[in-house]
Amino acid sequence: MENRQIVIASLPAGRLAAENFELRTAPAPTPGDGEVLCRTLVLTIGAGQRAGLQGSASYAGAPTTGIVMGGTAVARVEASNAASVPVGALVTCPAGWQDYSVHAAEAVNVVDDDGDPAHHLGVYGTNGLTAYFGLFAVGEPKPGETVVVSAAAGSVGHLVGQMAKLADCRAVGVAGSDAKCARLRDELGFDAAVNYRGDGFRDEFKQACGKGIDVYFDNTGGDILGAALRRMRPHGRIVCCGVVSQYDTDDPAPGPRGVPGLLVNNRVRMQGFLVFDYADRYAEARAQLKEWVTSGRLVPWMDEFEGLERAPEAFVDLLAGGNVGTRIVRVAD
Amino acid sequence: MENRQIVIASLPAGRLAAENFELRTAPAPTPGDGEVLCRTLVLTIGAGQRAGLQGSASYAGAPTTGIVMGGTAVARVEASNAASVPVGALVTCPAGWQDYSVHAAEAVNVVDDDGDPAHHLGVYGTNGLTAYFGLFAVGEPKPGETVVVSAAAGSVGHLVGQMAKLADCRAVGVAGSDAKCARLRDELGFDAAVNYRGDGFRDEFKQACGKGIDVYFDNTGGDILGAALRRMRPHGRIVCCGVVSQYDTDDPAPGPRGVPGLLVNNRVRMQGFLVFDYADRYAEARAQLKEWVTSGRLVPWMDEFEGLERAPEAFVDLLAGGNVGTRIVRVAD
Repeated sequence: MENRQIVIASLPAGRLAAENFELRTAPAPTPGDGEVLCRTLVLTIGAGQRAGLQGSASYAGAPTTGIVMGGTAVARVEASNAASVPVGALVTCPAGWQDYSVHAAEAVNVVDDDGDPAHHLGVYGTNGLTAYFGLFAVGEPKPGETVVVSAAAGSVGHLVGQMAKLADCRAVGVAGSDAKCARLRDELGFDAAVNYRGDGFRDEFKQACGKGIDVYFDNTGGDILGAALRRMRPHGRIVCCGVVSQYDTDDPAPGPRGVPGLLVNNRVRMQGFLVFDYADRYAEARAQLKEWVTSGRLVPWMDEFEGLERAPEAFVDLLAGGNVGTRIVRVAD
Repeated sequence: MENRQIVIASLPAGRLAAENFELRTAPAPTPGDGEVLCRTLVLTIGAGQRAGLQGSASYAGAPTTGIVMGGTAVARVEASNAASVPVGALVTCPAGWQDYSVHAAEAVNVVDDDGDPAHHLGVYGTNGLTAYFGLFAVGEPKPGETVVVSAAAGSVGHLVGQMAKLADCRAVGVAGSDAKCARLRDELGFDAAVNYRGDGFRDEFKQACGKGIDVYFDNTGGDILGAALRRMRPHGRIVCCGVVSQYDTDDPAPGPRGVPGLLVNNRVRMQGFLVFDYADRYAEARAQLKEWVTSGRLVPWMDEFEGLERAPEAFVDLLAGGNVGTRIVRVAD
């Protein structure tokens, strides 16, 4: 049985390119005792994976070439040597960019097999959990407050804004095109959305923030973080969730002016956050997310590429801001 | 009755100089109904006052020339038209840099008249309260953790390190001379103290931090904040208390690299803090501070200039890092 694999051919110097990857084939692996063989159905691609290709300063460890590119998938169990995970089960697992992978049974999570499997990589997966815990546990929004989110049309951001509305807050998005901004307002009910690439960004952003920002959910770092810092209200909270402006470069920008001065003046709390720290509360969050999705109050966006071989292209385009919602690659049915 | 006053003659362009101030005399003011006349005994000078001479970006409001320089004093009530504050009472008040000032009775605080009045400007005043709430309420140190403080020989810093020891933490100071560092270790019991102006600062700082920083109490911003950010342990807390590296300039530096990236990777919380937000807990804090001081477990350092006319010199020298402990100016007995 043939296993197509996409491997890291070279580490990027500067911006990532599809040429940093190559496709090879290998025999499909065989599961040992206590292991399962998984067939990849859907892969997800997130900007945070770019950090894993940096030489340092990432929570993902040091990168190497010649290995299969990492990534989370929804997969079907095709063979099992573990009673706890039967053949046919739908699971999420760290499959990487390949058709087949083998895992210890404890390393896969059996998930509900009702509806689109891809939701387990989006709203019920890391993206949805990140939006949920980042906003509610770290941001602590109160009714009537203004919540601003960057990369607002992204996999996490589009959920954050909707959750802010569910918490009776004003939701303001910052995104990279007028078309994305229009969709955030028209389809997801954001109160305002501003294109950070537009000429009038500063003025439009100021106006969109009204009397100021109570919670800023930062997916980008860089200039947008700097702009938000200047508009934080006293006792505002900044959820530091991602640094997409800094992933696709080997020369990270200096931090924003106003750190720490503006933090002091406005008693702002800025808190770095990784969703894994909330693992013991995932079940509670997923129950809430499912209720919101099935009742139509939370709309998860997906953005699809077809075919394993397109994963590098999907990744490069994502880093250039091409995605709307959770970017997935459909590998098999 | 003559009232000597030091007024702001010009706003500094770049570094503050004694020439930005001038001494004039005026008749002492007369208290109206409900007011008291205060004679200044001791003034305190803090680096944060420099922010009040900046054009913007300060919590102290916009500065102007031709007015008496602001500042907190311990004063003796010389005349009173308010039953609540009798003649002879010792008070703290926003006297400014002058011999006599008039205040509404509600604007002064009657303080204990036992011991050196200057302590009301140091360990029992804003400095001590800032150290106390910044460390305990914002930093939340746990026994065995490593607490690092910058401007460690300063008015707040020398108290923070001692309080960290009282909380069973390791205390590491960063200060601006070898002599200050030696005093922190030898006289106050800091576990380590590092001179940030020394050639070997990076290596010495790394070694002093041991397995990393759990709580960083930042009085400086700038490069020391940058160095501390790289050494924060997972779930570490940064107390943003002051930005002395940025006060005496009209060209603030960019923020530290690693914001927000390192905050995310290590889930670090960085929180701006002003002591005034804790006003309803001052009494509790002062009781604890007094117990520590009278039992000899907390040693407040003071650093004295003699004579009102030396206040500008005392301020300029403070900004250059000349002080050890709380800088005060004795004006009258």
